[in-house]
Amino acid sequence: MHLPITEEKVFKDPVHNYVHVQDDLIWRLINTPEFQRLRRVRQLGTSYLTFHGAEHSRFSHSLGVYEITRKIISQFERSGYPDWPKEERLVALCAALLHDVGHGPFSHSIEEAFQMNHEDWTCKILLGDTCINEILRSHDPKFPDKVAAVIDKTYEKPIVMNLVTSPLDADRMDYLLRDAYYTGVNYGTIDIDRILRMLRPYRDRVVVKESGMHAVEDYLMSRYQMYWQVYFHPVTRSSEIILRQIFRRAKELFEQSFDFAFMVDPLPSLFEGNLTVSQYLRLDEALIQTAFLQWTTEEDELLRDLCSRFMHRRLYKYAEIDTIDLHTIDSIRQAFEHAGLHPEYDLEIDFPTDLPYDEFHSDSPASDKQILLLDRYDRLREISEVSDIVRSISGIQRGRYHLYYPEDKLKKAWTNLPKEVADLLAPGLQHD
Amino acid sequence: MHLPITEEKVFKDPVHNYVHVQDDLIWRLINTPEFQRLRRVRQLGTSYLTFHGAEHSRFSHSLGVYEITRKIISQFERSGYPDWPKEERLVALCAALLHDVGHGPFSHSIEEAFQMNHEDWTCKILLGDTCINEILRSHDPKFPDKVAAVIDKTYEKPIVMNLVTSPLDADRMDYLLRDAYYTGVNYGTIDIDRILRMLRPYRDRVVVKESGMHAVEDYLMSRYQMYWQVYFHPVTRSSEIILRQIFRRAKELFEQSFDFAFMVDPLPSLFEGNLTVSQYLRLDEALIQTAFLQWTTEEDELLRDLCSRFMHRRLYKYAEIDTIDLHTIDSIRQAFEHAGLHPEYDLEIDFPTDLPYDEFHSDSPASDKQILLLDRYDRLREISEVSDIVRSISGIQRGRYHLYYPEDKLKKAWTNLPKEVADLLAPGLQHD
Amino acid sequence: MHLPITEEKVFKDPVHNYVHVQDDLIWRLINTPEFQRLRRVRQLGTSYLTFHGAEHSRFSHSLGVYEITRKIISQFERSGYPDWPKEERLVALCAALLHDVGHGPFSHSIEEAFQMNHEDWTCKILLGDTCINEILRSHDPKFPDKVAAVIDKTYEKPIVMNLVTSPLDADRMDYLLRDAYYTGVNYGTIDIDRILRMLRPYRDRVVVKESGMHAVEDYLMSRYQMYWQVYFHPVTRSSEIILRQIFRRAKELFEQSFDFAFMVDPLPSLFEGNLTVSQYLRLDEALIQTAFLQWTTEEDELLRDLCSRFMHRRLYKYAEIDTIDLHTIDSIRQAFEHAGLHPEYDLEIDFPTDLPYDEFHSDSPASDKQILLLDRYDRLREISEVSDIVRSISGIQRGRYHLYYPEDKLKKAWTNLPKEVADLLAPGLQHD
Amino acid sequence: MHLPITEEKVFKDPVHNYVHVQDDLIWRLINTPEFQRLRRVRQLGTSYLTFHGAEHSRFSHSLGVYEITRKIISQFERSGYPDWPKEERLVALCAALLHDVGHGPFSHSIEEAFQMNHEDWTCKILLGDTCINEILRSHDPKFPDKVAAVIDKTYEKPIVMNLVTSPLDADRMDYLLRDAYYTGVNYGTIDIDRILRMLRPYRDRVVVKESGMHAVEDYLMSRYQMYWQVYFHPVTRSSEIILRQIFRRAKELFEQSFDFAFMVDPLPSLFEGNLTVSQYLRLDEALIQTAFLQWTTEEDELLRDLCSRFMHRRLYKYAEIDTIDLHTIDSIRQAFEHAGLHPEYDLEIDFPTDLPYDEFHSDSPASDKQILLLDRYDRLREISEVSDIVRSISGIQRGRYHLYYPEDKLKKAWTNLPKEVADLLAPGLQHD
Repeated sequence: MHLPITEEKVFKDPVHNYVHVQDDLIWRLINTPEFQRLRRVRQLGTSYLTFHGAEHSRFSHSLGVYEITRKIISQFERSGYPDWPKEERLVALCAALLHDVGHGPFSHSIEEAFQMNHEDWTCKILLGDTCINEILRSHDPKFPDKVAAVIDKTYEKPIVMNLVTSPLDADRMDYLLRDAYYTGVNYGTIDIDRILRMLRPYRDRVVVKESGMHAVEDYLMSRYQMYWQVYFHPVTRSSEIILRQIFRRAKELFEQSFDFAFMVDPLPSLFEGNLTVSQYLRLDEALIQTAFLQWTTEEDELLRDLCSRFMHRRLYKYAEIDTIDLHTIDSIRQAFEHAGLHPEYDLEIDFPTDLPYDEFHSDSPASDKQILLLDRYDRLREISEVSDIVRSISGIQRGRYHLYYPEDKLKKAWTNLPKEVADLLAPGLQHD
Repeated sequence: MHLPITEEKVFKDPVHNYVHVQDDLIWRLINTPEFQRLRRVRQLGTSYLTFHGAEHSRFSHSLGVYEITRKIISQFERSGYPDWPKEERLVALCAALLHDVGHGPFSHSIEEAFQMNHEDWTCKILLGDTCINEILRSHDPKFPDKVAAVIDKTYEKPIVMNLVTSPLDADRMDYLLRDAYYTGVNYGTIDIDRILRMLRPYRDRVVVKESGMHAVEDYLMSRYQMYWQVYFHPVTRSSEIILRQIFRRAKELFEQSFDFAFMVDPLPSLFEGNLTVSQYLRLDEALIQTAFLQWTTEEDELLRDLCSRFMHRRLYKYAEIDTIDLHTIDSIRQAFEHAGLHPEYDLEIDFPTDLPYDEFHSDSPASDKQILLLDRYDRLREISEVSDIVRSISGIQRGRYHLYYPEDKLKKAWTNLPKEVADLLAPGLQHD
Repeated sequence: MHLPITEEKVFKDPVHNYVHVQDDLIWRLINTPEFQRLRRVRQLGTSYLTFHGAEHSRFSHSLGVYEITRKIISQFERSGYPDWPKEERLVALCAALLHDVGHGPFSHSIEEAFQMNHEDWTCKILLGDTCINEILRSHDPKFPDKVAAVIDKTYEKPIVMNLVTSPLDADRMDYLLRDAYYTGVNYGTIDIDRILRMLRPYRDRVVVKESGMHAVEDYLMSRYQMYWQVYFHPVTRSSEIILRQIFRRAKELFEQSFDFAFMVDPLPSLFEGNLTVSQYLRLDEALIQTAFLQWTTEEDELLRDLCSRFMHRRLYKYAEIDTIDLHTIDSIRQAFEHAGLHPEYDLEIDFPTDLPYDEFHSDSPASDKQILLLDRYDRLREISEVSDIVRSISGIQRGRYHLYYPEDKLKKAWTNLPKEVADLLAPGLQHD
Repeated sequence: MHLPITEEKVFKDPVHNYVHVQDDLIWRLINTPEFQRLRRVRQLGTSYLTFHGAEHSRFSHSLGVYEITRKIISQFERSGYPDWPKEERLVALCAALLHDVGHGPFSHSIEEAFQMNHEDWTCKILLGDTCINEILRSHDPKFPDKVAAVIDKTYEKPIVMNLVTSPLDADRMDYLLRDAYYTGVNYGTIDIDRILRMLRPYRDRVVVKESGMHAVEDYLMSRYQMYWQVYFHPVTRSSEIILRQIFRRAKELFEQSFDFAFMVDPLPSLFEGNLTVSQYLRLDEALIQTAFLQWTTEEDELLRDLCSRFMHRRLYKYAEIDTIDLHTIDSIRQAFEHAGLHPEYDLEIDFPTDLPYDEFHSDSPASDKQILLLDRYDRLREISEVSDIVRSISGIQRGRYHLYYPEDKLKKAWTNLPKEVADLLAPGLQHD
């Protein structure tokens, strides 16, 4: 049974000013240990090593996504749009609030290192033996399944999924605003009030009234700038690379039955790939940082060095190059090995990429990668058909290769490296 | 030897926009493990449990204090004020940057629980076998002592200490602005540019030009509001109380040779009170949070319960009362014991207090607790002599007693409590 | 008959982001010539001569007051508070929107110079032969009277008047925020969202939930600072003095049948004190500025000089003194006359004053000068009973006498002035 | 002779926080009647009829341009860049401050209506019998000519002109920030601190360090958005059209010796095209608005109607069409005439256009329309060579034709209009 709370509760939030909680169900979900754990998982992973202000957590972001979704639905209800299914309000709000609950510590890197997926974990947490599951069930025995179906995109009402996940969803709007606020860059300032006022439920989708086109253009350009200025910042990539190398090295050692001075549950299960839900929920960034700091004194030199680099921010330097082929990479690795460097740990190649608005040119009007504009004749048009600026930026695939390496080690091995390899990496040596 | 860096380096900062580093010495200090450790110590301790945005670190704050100090000195130099000793620039900048380097995890609570003092630790780190000490010494063998003397207020040049520590110092200005930014409250917005323009070196002190009086009034009122809205927020106090109880209980158990399932270095030394500098530097909030999460499954029920409360944010509730005497407190504790509650762990009494501007009415013009205004006839006057608003708020000692208790336990013991005790705590039961 | 508009219209506003218009009645009122005229009346009179950004109009402010009132009522309706009379919504919105429609150009000064009152003019415009009257009548023949009754505080529902005029009304909240925004000072930043959430209709009044006390304290302190930093700024007072002197001199000349080279309707009626409503509505700041600029070439030297001072911003200088008595003033005026200065035009004495929160200590709970807090036991208490800070600032009567004079003229007459008069004004001569 | 002022003076500014005046010359120029007149000329002309907050003046903007220029030069001096000619500081600052001093009331429209050019008037004011000229001459007899040469781009030092006028100059940076602030749109928020830090004097130009590329991209995109959201807003265009029609009609009547009830100097000279400098300086927006309001009661119906539309904001409606040819326009005008409408006053066709970054594909590296990036190998590259996003937006010529007409008149003539004309304009009738 659903009880609205007698007087709404609020959270003070720097981005939305206040987050308003009007349902007892939402209030109880926020107070579960599983949701509180998100306080110990940073929203931007290692970006705080590049932008020191970016220490904000997935807890803050999740509240923000919930709040934007609440505002959208509230506007739909106030305007009485017939295409919005009113009975889906709480499902949508729960999915918005909980969509990130499966994120692990340093999510991006840990997922790559251990082949995990946070959306799977979100569903496991919703459906497993957790407080969240219990609270959802107490509301309606089918609720855990419903919310999980929205997350894994199999829910029967497409408009709910489209509201929660689309190129213009509450998730993206909150993170642009929040990440801009906490890093301090001003690229992510979008006119969210205007965008929200322009959203319309239309058949199975949430579309944008045509007169909101400029606000959407601005949003897409902000998103583009945030990707290049913040998310793909080479210093952040450098720290992610070291993070993944630590996970890789620790797993290698674990598999070789290395005798770790510090090893606590659930790390062994992480390495073995058999984490239970309850174990997964004990993984957080405090544990990872504690392990890394303790490991700076382990016997294995490589692990010790990597952990020390990460904890004390002595990151890899990088060289930027326009293009590189596989053969050249092989040659560099061999040259590294001959020069006494580790062919893999001491060299990483990275190619960041993103499409600011990657629309599909498919004919399917249901494609959830499109932003559709609704004109006054009730015609739907994909935004890049109408907007010159979106059309002109939507094909851009920018990005250059970056070679990452430990500068101190490279300097020691410098004279043993072939000239062409040294030249390729040389600019980096003058770099900071 | 001192090398300015060829091109200044910047940190993007949400509060000051950019932090400018112009000296190689400063750059190298920032990159020490000891300074990087401040990334793992939150500026506001447990306040993030009240204001979810307040996850910012002492690292950010320390850069901010450095930046404000840099701006003040730069203005003094540009204007060529004769009372500013130019040769003290780097000493002052280092002291500003490093003044918080001795803060431990959840500093306020851990200091209370283990009778430590962060300023002592700052000096130990400056003078001990650390990278910071090495870098300072490489600049000038006397530099570690000089900087430490500024911190412990024994430096020969009083104006340097007054710049770094006074009621209007860079430390206070940065934290007001930064804490307001990250919590999202707008009480802390002060006109820092104007205040900085109004500061003047005058004999042994930094004073304020009289025409800056209103900006200082505004700063003191902001400070007052921040204390009551943020720093003394009862929910934050509640979380600090639980934190201190955990430390207390863990220490009790440790002294009783309790067999902790999780116990890593340097925690034993913390309990024994014999931490070395190198051990102290391994204490951070990641370790404390990891220990607490691990301890949620220890054998001792009290420790388990307290850790679970802190980690999953099930805090103590509180009742507010105007006054209370020692005798009443004793009676409540006895009643608690009779009702099966713990007379100390289940009841804490707290009286927050602060003076917004606690000037000393001493005759000593050198008192470092005063804010002095300099008028156009070169007369110095203590601000509350001139400002009605400062005079009227400077005596205010506001604050009420708060009784904190675990609501769930209290409810179970309810019928066994005498009516007068239940009545005293009753309002809290309706409270959230 | 009342028609809501099919899709709400918005105005982009820097302070409230958007102003939402949801009623056709409101939309039509905004589009009347009488309301559009407010675009040509500055919100802060001559303050733009002190703060160059403060060029904003009463049009902007009136929209802002409407928007805040709309938000308050909308919250009352959403929460279903029984003490709010729902049928009063449009009356309250119209009164909020139109409350300033009777303001003349440089309102403060023109009212003083010609003994007018903008609230009287507002009522005349509401009830006279105007487009506003016609639109209000078309809604309901009694509407012009109802709205006018709210303005002149004779309306039958006290809560409507209390909403529109009280120490915590939409008018004051908008002007604090707006004036802070446009001047650029940051003293006026209040947490309006929180204040609005804390307002409650309670019997005949709008009161504040007790937990909103700190936000109200902050509002009162902001108001205090804005008064001293902006509204009573001595440079603004200086420009107001000159403005009044121009009005006074022009009226004198008009009464002496002076032959003005520039004199257009409705200025003669202004001087004669018999403006009709339709004439009043042709008065705006464009006309006043045009007259002043044209008058810089009139025959009368005094008028010419005053107009040139105002238009080219060559304002009077001032000396600040603690106290002055009537006898001294007389002596100065005589000394001025002897020295060839004008005893009145060349000397003005000003004493600015304001009480930050001027509560009445009357026993009448209906006093509309009080801010009442509502606690959880449904008790009402006047805020200064509960808040130390409000109590401590509410008695402060600060302010000093300012003597204003034309520095250039004074310098010429300097040697003819008695020493004690010169000394009194001397500091000003070094002043800028 | 040049005197720095003993203590710098500041203006509080909402955009730059403070504008710092450090030279007596600058201070005296600001206090001239000619510069003070800019307070009575709005920065954005009629845009306040679309964005009610946009009431800011060219006075504010001119101070802002000066302040940005001061910051750039100060950074050049501090860094000791050899390519910056230090002796040009004051020439550059004066040109920055005074570059807009020749703007007339509603500058854009009045220039079109009377074939004037504000840069010519700026030079006439600098070189004529004005206070500005006198002050510049008192500094150095050649100064008026020098500053005027910078304005009309004939100065001997190209870098000074490039600093004052280029696609990335202080003028553009200030107006983007200022117009965004006062309208309330958030498209114009650029990271000006970063851009300023990245500027370098390089031979004859000011170029951008390559690492500032993203900030410049962001600036160009902001500029693009501001053009479409603010500067080319169709409602603003509508008000400009009416303004031009008023000027045109008044001039026609004047040439027909119409007996204006209101006609004051210098309007006759404006119509005759023989304004002197001293007359030009008496033109301001107060006069224009006063004339228009007085003209709402003139004998000529067309003039009366147009003035009433402008003053009471009853603007023309518009229809948007993709393309239109001259022949069609002729037919519409004829149809209008047959239907009793005025073929020209009742129909205006408008095609707004702008290139976000209109680089020249010339080979001349000195082209002042280019933004050049300086890489670490000291190579200069035009930004669109390096930036995908700039390349992709630099060709965009967006914009559609707009037909403007008086809706009320059209409705009356509706049945007399041919169907194809009615259809073309029809969508507009449903428009608001």
